Amino acid sequence: MPTLVLIRHGQSAWNLENRFTGWWDVDLTEQGVAEAAAAGALMQAKGLDFDLTFTSFQTRAIKTLNLALEAMGRLWLPTEKSWKLNERHYGGLTGLDKAETMAKHGEAQVKLWRRSFDIPPPLPEEGSAWDLSRDERYRGVPIPQTESLKDTIARVLPYWDERIAPALRDGRRVLISAHGNSLRALVKHLSGISDDEISGLEIPTGQPIVYQLDDGLRALDRYYLNER
Amino acid sequence: MPTLVLIRHGQSAWNLENRFTGWWDVDLTEQGVAEAAAAGALMQAKGLDFDLTFTSFQTRAIKTLNLALEAMGRLWLPTEKSWKLNERHYGGLTGLDKAETMAKHGEAQVKLWRRSFDIPPPLPEEGSAWDLSRDERYRGVPIPQTESLKDTIARVLPYWDERIAPALRDGRRVLISAHGNSLRALVKHLSGISDDEISGLEIPTGQPIVYQLDDGLRALDRYYLNER
Repeated sequence: MPTLVLIRHGQSAWNLENRFTGWWDVDLTEQGVAEAAAAGALMQAKGLDFDLTFTSFQTRAIKTLNLALEAMGRLWLPTEKSWKLNERHYGGLTGLDKAETMAKHGEAQVKLWRRSFDIPPPLPEEGSAWDLSRDERYRGVPIPQTESLKDTIARVLPYWDERIAPALRDGRRVLISAHGNSLRALVKHLSGISDDEISGLEIPTGQPIVYQLDDGLRALDRYYLNER
Repeated sequence: MPTLVLIRHGQSAWNLENRFTGWWDVDLTEQGVAEAAAAGALMQAKGLDFDLTFTSFQTRAIKTLNLALEAMGRLWLPTEKSWKLNERHYGGLTGLDKAETMAKHGEAQVKLWRRSFDIPPPLPEEGSAWDLSRDERYRGVPIPQTESLKDTIARVLPYWDERIAPALRDGRRVLISAHGNSLRALVKHLSGISDDEISGLEIPTGQPIVYQLDDGLRALDRYYLNER
């Protein structure tokens, strides 16, 4: 039976400050580092092991993966990194904290952006401090200006189909370290969650989510590793 | 002009204790961690950048790479890991410190093993504590029992030819984080150093070695980055 584990990166500096992060490359906090190492120790204690790992282009997810693998004695496993597993791009909300966003756009509008399935946040303002167009890592990448959850799913699922699902079908055990919304895309797909419900699904930081899949990669079970 | 930088891992626990390490998976010391981060900071300060990175299956080289890349803001670069970049396998000397080795085998013999080109150390003893045959990372890998420097070169150079040289010829900028002897193999090849001289070439830990290569991948210059 194919093994798949998903892990959202440990707490980041902007998780802590409650700011919209998206594609901005914020580091883990000390707590985030500890969460990542603890996740690796838990996976090892529960007897989980992997053949292949995936992560995004973002430091917080890559470090979470590396710290977890180090705790498992598995730093030598192959890792494929892709921008397609990046967090949802929050457009003009990037860098704002909740209070700033409410003051600027009003509570109802903010709730809509955060929790709707297909309404993207506003475009970034001209000359935004969070511009990524000169970031080397995204050379040749079609950087989104802003994304709804639906937009995020539309780039995550083709990557799943092309790179991750074939590895699982070949019997390789896979660990994915990514972000709240790129993981929502996978959980929605694997667990058949509706457009209305997926935005409300909270994915905690640093908690390995285990999928038991059948050979057609349909979910038989999904659980948090710390609860079994 | 192709860019190639080699870096030997930062100080490991057994570098510090002066023990033969080889394929045993010893971690970095605190100083080794600092050396790796400083190497990354130096490469960034000198304006070096990369498209592709290579490392061994051994924690000390992988962590050195990750720490250097983190210091450069380049954790997102692709990394290919291979056992073919591992340290020379020290066979029955693995785990012994210099004094133990001298007491057991005599000074002349030890010097011969350390510094000859083609004389491998003795085979491991039966039931050795340093047996790797049950290490998951080497499943399917023809683990050597012991290696001369010549044996190490014989596995490093085909990997260079198949995986690294083609990337350089494609114009990709390459960083390799590896070990004293797997790097000697590359330096011998690139700089045309004789069998007699290569064993005496000391490669310091955590110091980026820059190669300027022509389009045929012949070395025009080789220098320590901290000296220019």
